Amino acid sequence: MSKKALAFLKENRETLLSRLNHFLSIPSVSTDSAHKNDVHAAADFIVTYLEEIQFEKVQKMETAGHPLVYAEYNGAGPDAPTALFYGHYDVQPIDPIDEWKSDPFKPEVRDGRIFARGSSDDKGQVFMHLAVFEAYLKTEGKLPINIKVCIEGEEEIGSENLYEVLHKRKEQFKADFAVISDSGMIAKNQPTILYGLKGFTGIEITVDGPDHDLHSGMYGGAVRNPIMALNHILASMKDLDEVITVEGFYDDVEPLTDEERNIIANVPSEDFEESTGIPNTVSEKGYTAQEHTMGRPTFEINGIYGGYQGEGTKTIIPSSATAKITCRLVPGQDPEKIQQLLENHVKKVAPSGVNVQVKKEKLSAKAYKVEPNHPLIKKAAESYTKAFGKDTVYIRMGGSIPVVEWIEAIYQIPIVLLGFGTPEDRLHSPNESFPLDSFDKGMETLVYYWNKVKE
Amino acid sequence: MSKKALAFLKENRETLLSRLNHFLSIPSVSTDSAHKNDVHAAADFIVTYLEEIQFEKVQKMETAGHPLVYAEYNGAGPDAPTALFYGHYDVQPIDPIDEWKSDPFKPEVRDGRIFARGSSDDKGQVFMHLAVFEAYLKTEGKLPINIKVCIEGEEEIGSENLYEVLHKRKEQFKADFAVISDSGMIAKNQPTILYGLKGFTGIEITVDGPDHDLHSGMYGGAVRNPIMALNHILASMKDLDEVITVEGFYDDVEPLTDEERNIIANVPSEDFEESTGIPNTVSEKGYTAQEHTMGRPTFEINGIYGGYQGEGTKTIIPSSATAKITCRLVPGQDPEKIQQLLENHVKKVAPSGVNVQVKKEKLSAKAYKVEPNHPLIKKAAESYTKAFGKDTVYIRMGGSIPVVEWIEAIYQIPIVLLGFGTPEDRLHSPNESFPLDSFDKGMETLVYYWNKVKE
Repeated sequence: MSKKALAFLKENRETLLSRLNHFLSIPSVSTDSAHKNDVHAAADFIVTYLEEIQFEKVQKMETAGHPLVYAEYNGAGPDAPTALFYGHYDVQPIDPIDEWKSDPFKPEVRDGRIFARGSSDDKGQVFMHLAVFEAYLKTEGKLPINIKVCIEGEEEIGSENLYEVLHKRKEQFKADFAVISDSGMIAKNQPTILYGLKGFTGIEITVDGPDHDLHSGMYGGAVRNPIMALNHILASMKDLDEVITVEGFYDDVEPLTDEERNIIANVPSEDFEESTGIPNTVSEKGYTAQEHTMGRPTFEINGIYGGYQGEGTKTIIPSSATAKITCRLVPGQDPEKIQQLLENHVKKVAPSGVNVQVKKEKLSAKAYKVEPNHPLIKKAAESYTKAFGKDTVYIRMGGSIPVVEWIEAIYQIPIVLLGFGTPEDRLHSPNESFPLDSFDKGMETLVYYWNKVKE
Repeated sequence: MSKKALAFLKENRETLLSRLNHFLSIPSVSTDSAHKNDVHAAADFIVTYLEEIQFEKVQKMETAGHPLVYAEYNGAGPDAPTALFYGHYDVQPIDPIDEWKSDPFKPEVRDGRIFARGSSDDKGQVFMHLAVFEAYLKTEGKLPINIKVCIEGEEEIGSENLYEVLHKRKEQFKADFAVISDSGMIAKNQPTILYGLKGFTGIEITVDGPDHDLHSGMYGGAVRNPIMALNHILASMKDLDEVITVEGFYDDVEPLTDEERNIIANVPSEDFEESTGIPNTVSEKGYTAQEHTMGRPTFEINGIYGGYQGEGTKTIIPSSATAKITCRLVPGQDPEKIQQLLENHVKKVAPSGVNVQVKKEKLSAKAYKVEPNHPLIKKAAESYTKAFGKDTVYIRMGGSIPVVEWIEAIYQIPIVLLGFGTPEDRLHSPNESFPLDSFDKGMETLVYYWNKVKE
């Protein structure tokens, strides 16, 4: 029953793209309170779309933060399975704005890609689902399966209120499996099944020294420099072999099996230099870069600051320095335990003459893994292959999607990660884009998938 | 011949203070072009004063920037020595203006201090010299020695044009020794001879990684984190014993003699916690904090930045990280050689996977030291002690005064640093002030000194 839906998508491509442009032009930056109305406008866009295609119980569900769009489709009948479709309509901030080649909120197609903030993460992919629902409903009059829609507006700020909503409204959101399109393929047009995600946790280290910036001539040599103290602390946490040197950090790590290392070895590697601008890769000693990214925990300093940042020199000993750190975790590791190990290490190595504080980030998540040969995963792989004309590869990803852990924790249902992004999409960066190929073939994949799931 | 001059200063104290108030009320902020006329007015004030007391060749010497006031006094005759008196009439900006308890350009006496911008740095001290010249000339009809006056208007903006003037007009400014009153005493009413200043040099290290910030989930484990690379580089440059671990850094350092360590040990130490807010000090292994500050080279990271600095977390691998470093140097060390050693070290330890660049800061200076037992220094110490009724202490200072290096480089003459400021003067900060005690006893010191130099 997928042919008509496919034809609809082809015939209405221009209309759909123009509607997507409208969605992408709403600056729904969730972290910036100045964009509160825009965030609501993006939610309203989805509500309107779902109402138009006659989903039921369509609502903007208020939370303590930004609203979540909920809706149901029950037209497949009580015997058909129900999928929970999760996505998010909020986007990352756009700074540094100077680096955008076109307005982040005026979508522009160049070289077969739509350039706009949120085009890949995640408005573009959310829109594809809406369009596929529309295609089925306007041609066949029904969808092959039942759907519960959960599209939140706080993913980019840590999905602050989602867990509580899912937990409190457990019955309302209950489904047989979940489908999420908020990830990517290993390479453009390379069908990719994501069967594992990393967890994560984070800390912020602040080193306080003197109560104001001191003259480096009057006090240099008599005061511990907070930046230098921080450097020593951080350098003691990961060595130049990319091995994390925090005691106990690897204790609970589930080792990569030979089978997994084999799967990883067969993942086509992306053109690394093309997507990062640097030719050579580094990785944990004993592991390839792909093994490290997909299946080994990581430790990254996301930001650091302290003292003078302007032009030229300012001869001061700064009063403080701060570093932000996040770790990506693999199955077996407990985020809270890791936070504690990090804090223990920092406290242990903190030098005299400064006051070192560790702030534990609230948001953390365990890693997630699903069996690669689960029937729902197999069907996803077949749909992908049919649409893209290429064998599907199976990967674990270095990223983390908190909602995956929460759905797993609350419902214990399979979660199918059907992502269509590409490594060149520049998520969270200037000039985010999404390939039109992914748009077309991704919708085709979804059309096949809903049909296959019903079989 | 000093008694009459001293009596003059006593009798005319109110007139002199009122004239000083006039000088201090001219907002000669050199960095702000809106104050260009005020800068000229301050120069004119000095010109008028010097003409009135019949100095010769009094002139506002134009430079590429603000003018310099030049004058000569040759009345002591060809057999008497000639002193080059250097000072500056420009002042620092006044912001944050809200923190001033009285108008920075309406001098106000409170608790025995004159509060005004420039009261200590350096108008107040320049004025004391002018008043002492006047006292001698109006009572004795002559000064004990010959004088060349060099009072610039660009000290607070780096003395941009001074070197060129001194270099080009070498003959005109030539003298037997130089006297500078642009520094302070170790404590109020504690006669202090500054017999050494540090030199300085600086570099900026930039570590470039990927050409844009990368998603830490997608790339973590496969890319060298530029902040972590920078941390490893910096941590390798100074250890936690505060020893600089750059090869060759200490090679040319003139060691502290036992005599100097003895002098330093006798310098009254300031209340460290009171002025920095931290209780404990650190210093180079084998040296006290005061020895390190006064007589050993230092390495300070003045600023660092890279990646995300906002609230909460942003899970990126940043594209770059930068650190600003300045070193204070001691006699024997060559700034350019030190810059090269720093660069060599950075290049040597730079890890793979990132591009590390070193920018050498242009402004640098050699350290300066005069023999503490040079007759001109001894005489200064005796004059101090006579005026303040207290033994003089000898210190080397961690700071740098570029003009000192330039006079040394061009003329190779002794430089006597006769400063009367106190640690509480709040130079460059709101509520700058200068003790009336320093004003009275400082002028007394100068009266004695000119007389002693002639002996």
